[in-house]
Amino acid sequence: MNSKKILASIITIGDELLIGQTIDTNSAWIARELNEIGIWVHRRLAVGDLWNDIWKALDEEGNQSSIVLITGGLGPTADDITKPLLCEYFQGKMVVDQGALENVKNIFENILKKPMIERNLKQAEVPDVCQVIPNKRGTAPGMLFEKETAQTTGSKTFFISMPGVPHEMKGMMSNYVLPMLRSSFHLKPVIHKTMITAGLGESFLAERIKNFEASLPNTIKLAYLPNYGMVKLRLTASDNNPATAEILNDRFDELYKLLKDIVVTDEDKTLQEVVGNILKQSGKTVCTAESCTGGFLAHQLTSIPGSSAYFNGSVVSYSNAAKENLLQVPADCIEQHGAVSESTVRFMVQGALAALKSDYAVATSGIMGPGGGSEEKPVGTVWIAVGNQWKTEARKFHFRFDRQRNIELTAVNALNMLRMFLQEQHP
Amino acid sequence: MNSKKILASIITIGDELLIGQTIDTNSAWIARELNEIGIWVHRRLAVGDLWNDIWKALDEEGNQSSIVLITGGLGPTADDITKPLLCEYFQGKMVVDQGALENVKNIFENILKKPMIERNLKQAEVPDVCQVIPNKRGTAPGMLFEKETAQTTGSKTFFISMPGVPHEMKGMMSNYVLPMLRSSFHLKPVIHKTMITAGLGESFLAERIKNFEASLPNTIKLAYLPNYGMVKLRLTASDNNPATAEILNDRFDELYKLLKDIVVTDEDKTLQEVVGNILKQSGKTVCTAESCTGGFLAHQLTSIPGSSAYFNGSVVSYSNAAKENLLQVPADCIEQHGAVSESTVRFMVQGALAALKSDYAVATSGIMGPGGGSEEKPVGTVWIAVGNQWKTEARKFHFRFDRQRNIELTAVNALNMLRMFLQEQHP
Repeated sequence: MNSKKILASIITIGDELLIGQTIDTNSAWIARELNEIGIWVHRRLAVGDLWNDIWKALDEEGNQSSIVLITGGLGPTADDITKPLLCEYFQGKMVVDQGALENVKNIFENILKKPMIERNLKQAEVPDVCQVIPNKRGTAPGMLFEKETAQTTGSKTFFISMPGVPHEMKGMMSNYVLPMLRSSFHLKPVIHKTMITAGLGESFLAERIKNFEASLPNTIKLAYLPNYGMVKLRLTASDNNPATAEILNDRFDELYKLLKDIVVTDEDKTLQEVVGNILKQSGKTVCTAESCTGGFLAHQLTSIPGSSAYFNGSVVSYSNAAKENLLQVPADCIEQHGAVSESTVRFMVQGALAALKSDYAVATSGIMGPGGGSEEKPVGTVWIAVGNQWKTEARKFHFRFDRQRNIELTAVNALNMLRMFLQEQHP
Repeated sequence: MNSKKILASIITIGDELLIGQTIDTNSAWIARELNEIGIWVHRRLAVGDLWNDIWKALDEEGNQSSIVLITGGLGPTADDITKPLLCEYFQGKMVVDQGALENVKNIFENILKKPMIERNLKQAEVPDVCQVIPNKRGTAPGMLFEKETAQTTGSKTFFISMPGVPHEMKGMMSNYVLPMLRSSFHLKPVIHKTMITAGLGESFLAERIKNFEASLPNTIKLAYLPNYGMVKLRLTASDNNPATAEILNDRFDELYKLLKDIVVTDEDKTLQEVVGNILKQSGKTVCTAESCTGGFLAHQLTSIPGSSAYFNGSVVSYSNAAKENLLQVPADCIEQHGAVSESTVRFMVQGALAALKSDYAVATSGIMGPGGGSEEKPVGTVWIAVGNQWKTEARKFHFRFDRQRNIELTAVNALNMLRMFLQEQHP
C-alpha cells in the first residue's frame, strides 16, 4: 500500500438495504468511477435509517477517509432522517436554497406536470453550512460538507451526501462531484489493463501464471475476478513514474502470450460487446432461437446501444409448438430426441436463420430447474448450437446451479460459442 | 428500537467489491434471510483484501453485533488472505480437516472430473479453533468461530466465514447457518406484510396515508420501498405480544382500503409471479412480441420456475423485417406510422397471438437510447399494447432514463398492463 493513496468511504443509508429488499448497485458504480480517477474506496458501509447508527458511521468513516460519499435517506417521507442529521452533525441550521427550490418547482410544473405539495417544498431546504450540489434529475439536492477530522490533520475531509436513486446520484457524480474531486486532490494516475479468459478455473489459471505473478514488481498488482465460468484478469499500476505504464504494457503482453488459448478479449469489454464489434465490422447480422434462456440471450445482445445494426431478433420458442411453427423443428425430431437434444438445437439454428433472415444464429435448449429434470437429462443439461447457412456446431453442457444462474451461464456460454464461431469466419 | 434485538453485521471481503467490478448481491440475500428469522442486520461493511482492514473490521463489528457474517476471500489464489487471517485473529493453527478434504477430492473426481493440484488441497485446511461448516457446492469450507466481545459480556459473539460465490454461500446458510442461529438465539417473531402499488409517487403516497402512518403504534413500522415506478409498502411488527400479529393484520387491511385503486398485489410477490398465478389458475397462456425490450420481458416471465405451463414464447422483432415476417405487421403501417407507434404495437399483439397460439399477448416498441431519438419521438418514447383475440389496449409512455433503466421500466409497465388486463378478464 502506498501511504499517499487518497482513501474514500461510501456510506449507504436505508433500512431497505439492511433487510435485503434492495441490492446496492450504487456503491459498485461509485467505486468504479472513483477508481478510474485514482481514488481508492477502502470501506463501504451500509447502515439503517437510525440516528445513532448514521452518526456513528459519519464519525468512523470521517476518521479513516479523506472523502466520505453518502447516498440515500434524502427522500420526502418520515423515515428519511439523513438531512436533519447532517444539519446537526455539521452544526448548521436549515434554510431554503433558492436554486433547489426553483429546481423542485420546475420538475413539478414542466416534467411531472402535477401540483406540488408541502412535502415536496421541504426538499429545497438544506443546512446553511453546506455547499449545494444541483440535482437535475430529481428534487433532492446534494450537499457537500467539509470538516477537520483525524485522517487529515490540518486539512479537511469532504462529506458528500447524495440521493439513493441511481440515475439522480449518477448525474450528480458525473456533473459535479467527480470534476470537483479531480481538481481538489492531487491524484496519481491509475492504469488498468484487463483481459477475460474462459475455459480454465481460477485455481488452474493461478497455477499456470504462478511464476508470472511472482515476478511482478511492487508497483503492479494482479487481480483475479471470476464471473460466470470466465475469469477476468486485471493488471493495475498506480504510481507517478512514467516508465510504469510501459512496464505494465509489457507485462500485459507477456500475460497474454501465456494465456492466448483461453483469452476471450484483451480489452475490458463484455462478451456481448466483443461479439457486437465483430458483427459491426464485418457487416453481418445475428439472431437467436431460445428455449431455456427464455429471451435472456437476446436481452444481453440488445443491452448494447446500437445493437439494432446487427441484431435482427429472436424467437423464444418456449413451447414445442413454437419450435415447430416458427423454427420448423420437425415434430419427429422433438418426439425422438426430445426438446433438449443436439438435433433440436441444430434445427433451431437453421430455423432461426431462415425466419429472421440473418447471417448467424445461436440456439439454446436445456433444463434450468428446479423442476423438469430426469435421470437421463438432469436439471442443468443444456444444448447450445451456433451456425450459419453452411455449418452448425453444437455442444452439450452440464450446469449444477439454481435456475437464475443456469440461465446466465447458458447465455454466457452461448455468447462465447458465437464469439469463437465469428472469429473463425472473420479472422 | 427494542434493546433486546439480536444484532448482526455482514462483512464482505474482496477488492472486486471496492473497485466496483462486482455488485454485492450476497449481502441483500443474507439480510433477507436473517430478517425472516428475527435477526436485524444493522451494519454491512465491505473491505478489500488487506490484512489490517480486515482485522479492524472484525474488531469493529465483533464489538457491535452478536453475529458477524463474513463472505469472500476464501479462494485458492494469492490475494485470498481471509483464512490465514482468521487463524491468527482467533489464535489457532492450520490443520487439515478430513471432511473438507474428502469434499475437495469428491468434487474433483466426480463432478469436475479434473486432476487436483496442491493449491486445491490447501482448501481443506482450517484453523483448529473453528467449527467447520460443510460446503456441498464448492471446495472452500465455511468456518464458525466464537469469541467473547464487548457486545455480549459473559456471552459470546459468533463469527461465521463463508465463500463469496453466491450459490455456495446460500447452500451453507440454508443448510447449516440459519438452523444453527435459530436454535442458538432466543429469537422474537418478526412479521412482515407487504403490498405493492403502482401509479403514485412516493411523496404523494406518503401524503395520502399521512394520518394512517401517524396513528401506527410503536410496535409497527411502515417502510416505503420505491422501485421502478412502483412503491412497495411494508408493515413490520417485532414483539412478543401475540396480539401484535392481529393488530398488524388489521392495520394492513386498513392500508389496503386506503390504496385499493393503486395496489398491484397485497402479497410480497413480484409482478411476474402475480401474472403467472392468474394464468395458472385460469389455465390460459401468454406470449410476448418485443421490440425495444429485446427479450427482457420474456426473460422476466421465464425467470419464474414452472413458467412453461403458461408462457408459450416470444418473438423479439428487433428488425422491421422480423415485425413484418413473423408478426404480420403490414409494411404500410410501419412506413406510415413508424415502428414506434400505436398501430404497430396493436398489430404486434395480434401477430403474436397467431404466431404463438396464445390466449394473451403483450407487445413493446420504443426508443431506449442513447441514439435513435427524434424531436417527434425522443429517447424514452414507448408504446405498449396488451390484448386477446377480441380486444387490444395500447398506451404510450415517456421514460427519461438511461438505456438499461428504460428497458426495465418498459418491462415493468408491460407486466402491469398485462396484470390489469388479466384481472379484468378473470376477476
